[in-house]
Amino acid sequence: MPEIIRFTDVHAARERLRGVAHITPIVTSRTLDAQAGCAMFLKCENVQRGGAFKFRGAYNTISQLTADARARGVLAFSSGNHAQGVALAAQLLGVPAVICMPADAPAVKVAATRGYGAEVIFYDRMRDDREAFARGIAAERGMALVPPYDDPRIMAGAGTAALELCEQVPDLDTLLVPIGGGGLIAGSAVAAHGVRPAIQVLGVEPADGDDTLRSLRAGARVHIAPPTTIADGLRVVQPGALTFPIVQAHVADIFTVSDDDIRAAMRFALLYLKLVIEPSGAVPLAAVLTGRLPASAHRVGLIISGGNIDPPVLAGLWPQVDVHQ
Amino acid sequence: MPEIIRFTDVHAARERLRGVAHITPIVTSRTLDAQAGCAMFLKCENVQRGGAFKFRGAYNTISQLTADARARGVLAFSSGNHAQGVALAAQLLGVPAVICMPADAPAVKVAATRGYGAEVIFYDRMRDDREAFARGIAAERGMALVPPYDDPRIMAGAGTAALELCEQVPDLDTLLVPIGGGGLIAGSAVAAHGVRPAIQVLGVEPADGDDTLRSLRAGARVHIAPPTTIADGLRVVQPGALTFPIVQAHVADIFTVSDDDIRAAMRFALLYLKLVIEPSGAVPLAAVLTGRLPASAHRVGLIISGGNIDPPVLAGLWPQVDVHQ
Repeated sequence: MPEIIRFTDVHAARERLRGVAHITPIVTSRTLDAQAGCAMFLKCENVQRGGAFKFRGAYNTISQLTADARARGVLAFSSGNHAQGVALAAQLLGVPAVICMPADAPAVKVAATRGYGAEVIFYDRMRDDREAFARGIAAERGMALVPPYDDPRIMAGAGTAALELCEQVPDLDTLLVPIGGGGLIAGSAVAAHGVRPAIQVLGVEPADGDDTLRSLRAGARVHIAPPTTIADGLRVVQPGALTFPIVQAHVADIFTVSDDDIRAAMRFALLYLKLVIEPSGAVPLAAVLTGRLPASAHRVGLIISGGNIDPPVLAGLWPQVDVHQ
Repeated sequence: MPEIIRFTDVHAARERLRGVAHITPIVTSRTLDAQAGCAMFLKCENVQRGGAFKFRGAYNTISQLTADARARGVLAFSSGNHAQGVALAAQLLGVPAVICMPADAPAVKVAATRGYGAEVIFYDRMRDDREAFARGIAAERGMALVPPYDDPRIMAGAGTAALELCEQVPDLDTLLVPIGGGGLIAGSAVAAHGVRPAIQVLGVEPADGDDTLRSLRAGARVHIAPPTTIADGLRVVQPGALTFPIVQAHVADIFTVSDDDIRAAMRFALLYLKLVIEPSGAVPLAAVLTGRLPASAHRVGLIISGGNIDPPVLAGLWPQVDVHQ
């Protein structure tokens, strides 16, 4: 099997991102370490440009397009972090961008995407096939589709977060990463094993979005019912065709967490880590706080994948408090 | 006038804190830069141990006590970050600690202080003079009082945050710091001017806690009515006797911000910076977002002093949203 991405692809992505993406900080907490029973190092992609790691893959992809393709522009379908990552990367590179979003997408996300200069085109979630709708517009305008995860350039870009982390904290024995379509963990695993072959790479999924865990057990990509988890970035029904073989080769184990675990992790992050973590980004922390780490984990890197969260979700983490005081 | 603290005192404090205090990260944001009209560098003391810069001064002070004084223990009066900073520093140094708190202090703060191993003794806020009450217990038990700000060891410890910041970002032209009793800004100013004499040090106070601004204008320490600002850490009625001369010598200007400005800054930090900042820590950011920075500010360091915030305050930042969704 030819390698889908290599360690050198992650290095090349890092060169493209130099001076453009933030080198995000590592946060540590003795309170967390005491609960986890090991030393935790949190790679804060929630303070990445666009509020999530997605900018890395989007910029790595768009910056490699030909001048001709750049002039025609790029298109993505997403109502989440990928939309903002693509819109921001396109804006910085002077490339026109179209983002296809469901007509009922939160106004704040539509505004954020438009704020980065992208054109937003709405589809009807009940009527339209999202991907077919997007591909139709892309074909019509001659635009390049920027896929959310199943692309070597996206994976290599995402992997730069783990590459930085492994350089910022050189002696990690474990790396913990959330899994949606698998782009982040695939790139991260290749990066981490490139720096440090002995590191164990562990994935975490929401309980009802466990398509990758089921697929690993089945030995082939399994299709699940659409997840309804609060972790909206991880509502994926099947691992990617390109990401899955990398996950099979590199990931030692996968844990699952409940929505209550995720909310508890978000509250912990707000109160003790002083960090805003979106539900999808809190999934690995939820695994740590519910004691899923193996005894072999002593120095653990954890990728906080994003921090984009709507105010009602934030306020709703404490439904029992009287917000009017 | 003899110098109250010198640059070398801040350096000595840093040596005492090495490997004990976190070297807190710097967060940057293009969204913030665009609003501020300059490059902002946020020194995140909200992720310091104990959740605020206070740990630095407390540890610097207690670690200098004689073995005899350490054995007798330390005492502080505070229901806020100073309580937790002293309790944590004492615990790490194996020193008994008593924290005097009002009987109606939030249960979460009492629990946090006890969690660091301190004994909490309650006083009646209506009946007792807090300081006399605390001094009585200190005298009775032979304990050393750890003052919240008006002490050279506290100031030098606090100044290590600015020392780190000026080394992490070597070419700042402006430093923005919140003012309560003045310990943080005094230490920060001595540190920043030690590294870079040309830097302009600016302070920010809550509008109804403007004792330092009034004192600067009067040329002497002024006493104001007890502030009721949401910035509970800055409810000080008079600058410190030792901090004020340093503020007079080092601080170029002071701005004030309203409680609404502070809440808006906290919301901005949550949504765009992904950081939990307590009201007192959001005061300098509020000044930036309301356009108070002078035109001469191009590369601005800002100390985010703390992140300890009660869930109702956090949830109450969006009183208009339905938290039950």
